[in-house]
Parts: sequence; structure tokens; C-alpha cells
Amino acid sequence: MAKKPHTKLRVMMLGGLNEIGKNIAVLEYGANIIVVDCGLAFPEEDMPGIDLVIPDFTYLEKNADKVKGILITHGHEDHIGAIPYLLKMIDVPVYGTKLTLGILENKLAEHKLLGHRTMVTVKPGDKIDLGVFRAEFIHVNHSIADACAIAIKTPVGTVFHTGDFKLDVSPIDGDIMDLTRIGEYGRDGVLLLMCESTNIDRPGFTPSEKKVGSSLDSIFMTNTDKRIIIATFSSNVHRVQQIINTSVKFGRKVAVTGRSMINIIDVAVRLGYMDVPQHVLIDVSEIGRYPAEMITIVTTGSQGEPMSALYRMAFSEHKQVSLTTGDLVVLSSHAIPGNEKLIDRIVNELYRRGVSVYHDEAEVHVSGHACQEEIKLMHALTKPKFFMPIHGEYRHLMQHKELAEFMGMDPKDIFVCDIGQVLELDRKTCKRAGTVPAGRTLVDGYGVGDVGNIVLRDRRHLSQDGLIVVVATLDLDQMTLLSGPDIISRGFVYVRESEELLEEARDIARRVLTDMLDSGVTEWTQLKTHVKDALSKYLYSKTKRKPMVLPVIMNV
Amino acid sequence: MAKKPHTKLRVMMLGGLNEIGKNIAVLEYGANIIVVDCGLAFPEEDMPGIDLVIPDFTYLEKNADKVKGILITHGHEDHIGAIPYLLKMIDVPVYGTKLTLGILENKLAEHKLLGHRTMVTVKPGDKIDLGVFRAEFIHVNHSIADACAIAIKTPVGTVFHTGDFKLDVSPIDGDIMDLTRIGEYGRDGVLLLMCESTNIDRPGFTPSEKKVGSSLDSIFMTNTDKRIIIATFSSNVHRVQQIINTSVKFGRKVAVTGRSMINIIDVAVRLGYMDVPQHVLIDVSEIGRYPAEMITIVTTGSQGEPMSALYRMAFSEHKQVSLTTGDLVVLSSHAIPGNEKLIDRIVNELYRRGVSVYHDEAEVHVSGHACQEEIKLMHALTKPKFFMPIHGEYRHLMQHKELAEFMGMDPKDIFVCDIGQVLELDRKTCKRAGTVPAGRTLVDGYGVGDVGNIVLRDRRHLSQDGLIVVVATLDLDQMTLLSGPDIISRGFVYVRESEELLEEARDIARRVLTDMLDSGVTEWTQLKTHVKDALSKYLYSKTKRKPMVLPVIMNV
Repeated sequence: MAKKPHTKLRVMMLGGLNEIGKNIAVLEYGANIIVVDCGLAFPEEDMPGIDLVIPDFTYLEKNADKVKGILITHGHEDHIGAIPYLLKMIDVPVYGTKLTLGILENKLAEHKLLGHRTMVTVKPGDKIDLGVFRAEFIHVNHSIADACAIAIKTPVGTVFHTGDFKLDVSPIDGDIMDLTRIGEYGRDGVLLLMCESTNIDRPGFTPSEKKVGSSLDSIFMTNTDKRIIIATFSSNVHRVQQIINTSVKFGRKVAVTGRSMINIIDVAVRLGYMDVPQHVLIDVSEIGRYPAEMITIVTTGSQGEPMSALYRMAFSEHKQVSLTTGDLVVLSSHAIPGNEKLIDRIVNELYRRGVSVYHDEAEVHVSGHACQEEIKLMHALTKPKFFMPIHGEYRHLMQHKELAEFMGMDPKDIFVCDIGQVLELDRKTCKRAGTVPAGRTLVDGYGVGDVGNIVLRDRRHLSQDGLIVVVATLDLDQMTLLSGPDIISRGFVYVRESEELLEEARDIARRVLTDMLDSGVTEWTQLKTHVKDALSKYLYSKTKRKPMVLPVIMNV
Repeated sequence: MAKKPHTKLRVMMLGGLNEIGKNIAVLEYGANIIVVDCGLAFPEEDMPGIDLVIPDFTYLEKNADKVKGILITHGHEDHIGAIPYLLKMIDVPVYGTKLTLGILENKLAEHKLLGHRTMVTVKPGDKIDLGVFRAEFIHVNHSIADACAIAIKTPVGTVFHTGDFKLDVSPIDGDIMDLTRIGEYGRDGVLLLMCESTNIDRPGFTPSEKKVGSSLDSIFMTNTDKRIIIATFSSNVHRVQQIINTSVKFGRKVAVTGRSMINIIDVAVRLGYMDVPQHVLIDVSEIGRYPAEMITIVTTGSQGEPMSALYRMAFSEHKQVSLTTGDLVVLSSHAIPGNEKLIDRIVNELYRRGVSVYHDEAEVHVSGHACQEEIKLMHALTKPKFFMPIHGEYRHLMQHKELAEFMGMDPKDIFVCDIGQVLELDRKTCKRAGTVPAGRTLVDGYGVGDVGNIVLRDRRHLSQDGLIVVVATLDLDQMTLLSGPDIISRGFVYVRESEELLEEARDIARRVLTDMLDSGVTEWTQLKTHVKDALSKYLYSKTKRKPMVLPVIMNV
């Protein structure tokens, strides 16, 4: 037995709520820590200039010597995107299925980590020993191939982490979620279920990916005279496989455009996750060699991303593809909340060019996440003693709690946890046990965590009303104004049309400075504050705007 | 007959596409101009710091002497919001129904125009002579009371402008859309139909507002133990009437919170558009006097607006209302695209507090706009010779064109027009005839139109990577650096953690300046450009960020 404070299993999410810095679960028992998934998020609107959001790794850094490894459920950005950042801090092996690691390797290469860290490829059914933990990867269906749930045997019982999943009874790769193995774990006893909550507000079952194939068939059938351009998520290998299948059926060549789409298809084909007949895939530079109606183009940009391949096509900035009225664009995707307007912008532009647009999400897209009935099935099979809903905003987690109660769980055995909340378990009990540092770390360029609240506040301020710089050089020996004040503005008003306003601002600054010098004030902060206050007040009264005022006063 | 160039009717929208600066239609015949609606829009994401977007009034300003009046279809912001700005340029009478003008008067008061401009109240059926035009207001249903379509007799034929409408066969005020009068216009001949397109992509009919009443009844029935807080659009007088009706039925008092909600209910009650039994409405400060389950609170904030009453309740910043687990919040509204995340933020916070949330839009909200079948009905009744779809993004207008073709129109008689495109009509023909200045004017504080592309570009730049100011004072006689260079940064990095970086940047600036002075360079622009380039390059190499670099070099 380990010593007293370590005889319990500690479980915590360092990310996971509000979809920010999400998907990093930590299991700790004595001197053993394992990490499940390590995802990134994209910045919210109130984080100008931020490139990415990753979890706060403080706790893992502090306990680096305990960490045995990172287990990954599947290859989506929100599950693997922050791994390179974590691996820069702690050098531990990463375990995942072949496609998952294939996609991760592209990221490690970008961070110049490829070859410098241990990657261990696993298949469903494999069991991995990591200190006191034994983890088994279990096949599930999802919108990316090779996705897994992970069952982790710990000294106090089994923790079952679903990853992201759906039940697809007619999956493209033929393998349905391994209900049997999940049921065996349930029969043997699951101490804690950690289950995703994305679609908890949708009743019923998520339709099979195959539904999209039939819809594609009918679209191709009724558009034999058109070139067809299909935008979808680059990581949805099965979706792309179906686009290829339908294209082959209708005698079309398939060209791929968009960097992430090309990368992932390349990995998937190389690792045997896609089945592409010879001479079907052509380079996008070759599309001119075939009649338009013999071409399918698969593209990125389904979220309206500026500068994605679809965006560039719509706005005539794509080097190889020029859209015409003979084109049909199919959006085989779902708008991730917040992207609606970006997508609409592209769709409007397509209509403006006379391009046909097929945008009926119910027909050409299915979700990769379990709806209510599938989630109930997961609860019924695992029959957990304790339950922690994960992967969702707070409202989703609370709805998931209600579902677990509906399934017969006692509310006191359900733990809706904030980021950083620690659960402590033994064979019989589960309780909240304090918190660890957790939350968001902002990535901006090469900077990881160097942009904090003050920098963001300043950026928001600058973006709202711009900036006024007032510069003056003083001679404090003579108590005179040597040069200036000069006024420079950016993002405030258009200078040429506001000369008078800025001239008057300059006079005010001059008056404040000379008055203060005349009264013998030499205290730097006082001089600056007075100039700043006088100008802010004047500019607000004239414009109702509050630009950032930066007084720069130099002494010679 | 007027002289040659004026014998045709000219019709144009100065706003109307992409939902920006929308809803201002202009009809011109000889020396006669009338304006139909004059709305504002809220800024898009790429317009930081902008408060409002109004139409470009250049054309109306230039032809101010011709303008006979402004006709308003109804009192929504996107139809009346820009009127105060137009009335500051041209003093013409405004025509609208009682409630519409009642709401407009609040806005005019804010702009200190109330009492200084002519307002003419009309009722449906009234005919107004404006120069060569005769306009008739015709009752339609919509999500605000007292909405009208407007039929305008011109010397070359009738123009029928639908405004925003739906067909409600069981409206709250008892008056269904005046199909008879619309049909009479159709029988007598409509030259041009201008019809709204908001819900053109929705099949079927929009449900009646009364549907919401039944849903409210069942919600109140099953929540007799809870205080009920309902958020909805403040201008939806009929919705609020139904909330009051249901509250009365269940013996509840009704309190109203949120400035715009209080204002509009006040106007509606005063003008007789709402029927409120005595002692039902109480002040929100009085809610403590009644048991929670006897209270209904009607609030703003259904779009998640920060600082709205609902937002303040959710985040414990509301002075009179503290939410508890005994509360039910009902969102009786639809998320306007772009607001989804703001709304989710509030809903998450409500769940976090254990407040119950009812958010099933299909049950407690109906649209105010016509769906496909109602739009077809409008086409069938008016039987226009020519057709111009309005009020929608480009994709909506194109879909509306398809619907008109389905209804039997010849594609060449349908005109999908960009903002500023002029249509020229006589009794027999309609054709495109050039463009007039049109588009967006940005309002920022007191400034109307003074924020242009350069200012916005600078704001976006500042918000992305912040700012570096480099200041130095030179003595160009002695060719020496007198003081500085100093470096000030805002929104770039957190200074305390990046001292080294900024120190090195300072050294680089010093080196560049002294080198140039040593080589005899005194040209201002050259000095600045060199400092800027050297610093930008250095900072990018170290941080992968591109802050705005502002060199300020003074001479003594």
C-alpha cells in the first residue's frame, strides 16, 4: 500500500468546460499520473490576436516525474492539438491508434518534435501498463476513423472514458462500436464513467454516416452536367471516402484542395484507411484536362474560414479553381457555433457568381456524436457506480446529469465538475477534494501564456477607439517645453478630416504642460496623468469616444 | 409631361443587401422623391468600435429639395433606426402608424429632434399625396403591432412594397393581413412588387403568434411552484400581451425590466396597443412583496446582450432580481445569427446557478416573417409585372427569384439588385439604369461617417498584436541622440515578463539611430522607416507577432 495521502484515485479535468482548453483528463494514484487526450480550442471573440487556447499545464509540470504517458482517443484537434505544447514540458510516451498518431506526427513535425518523442501505436483490444494503471483501447464510431474509448483499470476500480463517440450500425469501415467489450466492462464493474455530452440536447439516435452516401448519390445523379465541389471537415476520412466512392460511380476524377485536407488524405491513404482506385485522385492543377462534369473537387473551408480553399474559390483568389455558373458547391458539414456568419459570407458570394449551392445539412451531413438514446445505451452498458459528464458546456453537463438520473442513478453519485475540480475515489466512495490550477493558456505566435488579461484588455481597448500618442520633450532644468507636444493618432479618427480636433487636442496638451511647468511640477507621473486626463475628457466631449491616450514625455 | 430625363420612375435601395445599412427604398419621378423605411444595422465583427451602421445618404442629401417625405412600414430598428440621422440632413415629414411613430418619437427625443420635425400619423386605408405619388398604408401581420405594407401609385403604375410581413390567421389584435385590399391592387395592376425575403428558405407557413400563447399556458401550468422570467424582443408587443394574459390566468403579477422593454410597453399601453387589467403590472422593485410563484418577470436580453437585464440577472449584477433554484427562465425568442455564443454564455451561467431554463424555440417563439407559401400568396395576389426581391442577403434574394419563376414570372422581369443599383420603369418596361452612391456609413460615438477603412484597418491591426511606440529626441545640429530611445508597449506582451525582449528592442532602435546619424542621415521619413523596419523584423523573429510600430522622433 502506498502511504496514506496516496491511497485514493484522483481524477480531474484540466480543461473541458465551455469548450475552452478542453479535453484533458488526468488520473492520479500515488506516484502515477496518466493523461487522457490533450486538446486545443480556438479563441473566443474577446481574445483578439490569440491563435490558440491550450490547457493550463501547471499541475502536470509540477508533477512531471509522476506522468507515465498520454493516451489519445482520436485525432481531432480538440483532443490532440495541445500535445506538442505538453511534450515540450514533459517527455513522456504517447499512445494512440495508427491514424491518430499519423495525424499527430504532422503536428509534431511542425513543432520540430518528430523523432524526439516516443509514439506507441495501439490497436483496439491492446492493453497498456502505465505504472499502476492498465488501459485498454476500445473501438467506437465517430466522425474520424480509428476512434477509441479507453477503459482504465486502477487499484480502486475501472474508469471508463468514452472519448467522442456515436453508434453507427452501418459504418463505412464496417466496424461498429465494440458494444460487447463495453458490456463486459460494465458486467465486471465500472467505478467511474466519464462520458461525452456534445449532443445531449438531441433526442433519438444520430444517423449513420452511410446516409450521407445516399444523399451524395442523388445529388450526383441530378447534377451530371455540373462540376461538383464538396466542402467538408478535413479529418472526416469516411466522408471523403464516400465522396470518392460516389465520384467513381459517376465516372468522375477527384481533386483535393486545401492544405489540411491534402495532409490528412495523404496520411489516411498511406496508412490504409482509405480505399482509392487507381487514377481517380488527380492533382488540382490537372482539372483543366477533363470536362467539368467529370470532376469532383474536395475542399476545406466548410466553416467559412478566411483564406481556406473554398473561401479563395468564392472570392476568385484560388490559383487553380475558377468557379462558373456550371458549378455546384455542396456544404457537407455543420456550422460550428460562431462560424455561421463566415459561412453565410461565402454562400452569398457563391450565389452572386451564379454558382449553385447545396446546403441542406440534414441531407449531406451527420453528426459524429451520440444523441440521447446512444448516451443512454452507454450508461446502460457500463452501469457505472459514479458518473462525471465531460465534453460540453455547463448546460450540456447539467442535461447529462438529468439523463443519468433518468437512467436510475442517484444524484449524489453524479459529479458535474468545473475545470480543476478534483474527485477522489476509493472502491466505495467518490467525493470532491479541492482543486488544482487549471484553465486556459493563450498561445499567440511563439508566445505560450505570455498574453494575459492586461494585454487582452489593452487590445480590446485599442480595437474599440484606437490610440492617441502625445509626445513632448521637456527641459526640466529650465522648466521649459523643448519640443512638442505632438499628437499621433491611429484607429481613432481619419486624420485628414479631423485636423481641427487634433490641433485643439495639441493646444490643450501644451496648455496643461506649460501650466504645470510654470507651477513648478516636475513629477513625471503627475505630468502624464494630467495630460492624459485633460485629453481624454476633451476627446470624449467632442467625439463620445475613449481612445487610449499614451503621453510620452521626455527629458533632455 | 415632365421633360425627357424625368419621365421614368426610378427605384433604388440605398441599403438592403447583406443585412447591412438595410431597408431604405427610394422612389424618384421627376422632381419628386419619397423614401420608404430608413433602418440601421449593428456592426459586423470586422468593424471594431463601431456603434451602428446606417445607409449612405449622399444621394438624398444631393437631392434634398426633391424629397417629399419618409414612409415607414413598422417600428423595428432596422426600419426606423436611421431616421434621426436622415432628418438631421433633410427636414421632411415622416408618415407612419400610431405605434410606429410612438416608438420613433423615443428615438427622436434621444437625438433632440422631437418637436422639430413633422410626424404624420396614418391608419391603414389612409392615402397620402406626396408630389406625384399617392401612397396607401395596408395592414399586415408581423412581430410588431401596427405594421403595414405600402402601395404607391406613381405616374407609370403602382409599386407595392410589402414591408416585413407574415399571414397570421389568428392574430392577437384580431386583424389579419388585409388580403382583400392587396388583392384589389393586384386586380387593378401592380407594376413593381418589392417583397421581403427573410424566410425565403423556409417551406410552408409561419405559425400564428397564438401558438406561443398555448405553449406559455402549459409552461405556467407545470411550473406553478416557480417564479417565471421570460426574455423576449422588446418590440414584440403581442408577445408581451400574451405573457400578461397567461400571467393573469394563473394569478401572477407582472414586472418588467430592461430599458427598451419598459419604454416600448409604456408607449404601447399609452397608445392603446396593449390591454392590461388593473394591478397586474408592478414595478420590479415591488417583486419582494409577493411570493415568488406569483411573479412573472418580462425582460430584455434574449439575444444575450452584455449588460441587458437578463445578463445582469445571470451574473448577479441586477439590482432588483436575484435568481435562485426556484426560478424558471424562458427564452421566448430566436437567436439572431451571430448572437448564439452570447446567448449560450447566459444559459450556461443560469445552469451553473441551478436555475431552470426553457429554451425550446419551436414552442415559445414564432417568426414574424412570411415563409415560402405566404410569399407565394403575396405574389399570387399582387400579380406584379416586374419584381424586385428585397430584405435579405444575396442568397435569399436569389432564392426569392427562383420562387418568383416558380410562380410563373419571366426571369427577365425579375431584378436582383445590389445596393445603389437604379431600376428605371415606365408603364411597359423596367431596366437597370446605372448606380447612385449607396452603402454603409459607420457611426462611432458622435461621429457619422468619420471612421473609414483606414481607421478600421488600424483598429484591427492594434487588436491583433498591439502596439510598440519608440520615442527618441535628436539634436540634428549636433547629429546626436539627446534622449531615448524609449519603448512603450500596449497589447503586445506583458511587460514585466518580457523585459529582456523590450530591452533588446531598445538597443536595436538605438543602434539604428546612431548609425544613421553617424552616416549623416537627417531625413525624417528615412529615420522612422529604418527604426520601424528593424524593430518589426526583430520582434517578429522573436515572437511571430506583428505589433504596430510607431516611431516618434523629435528634434530639439
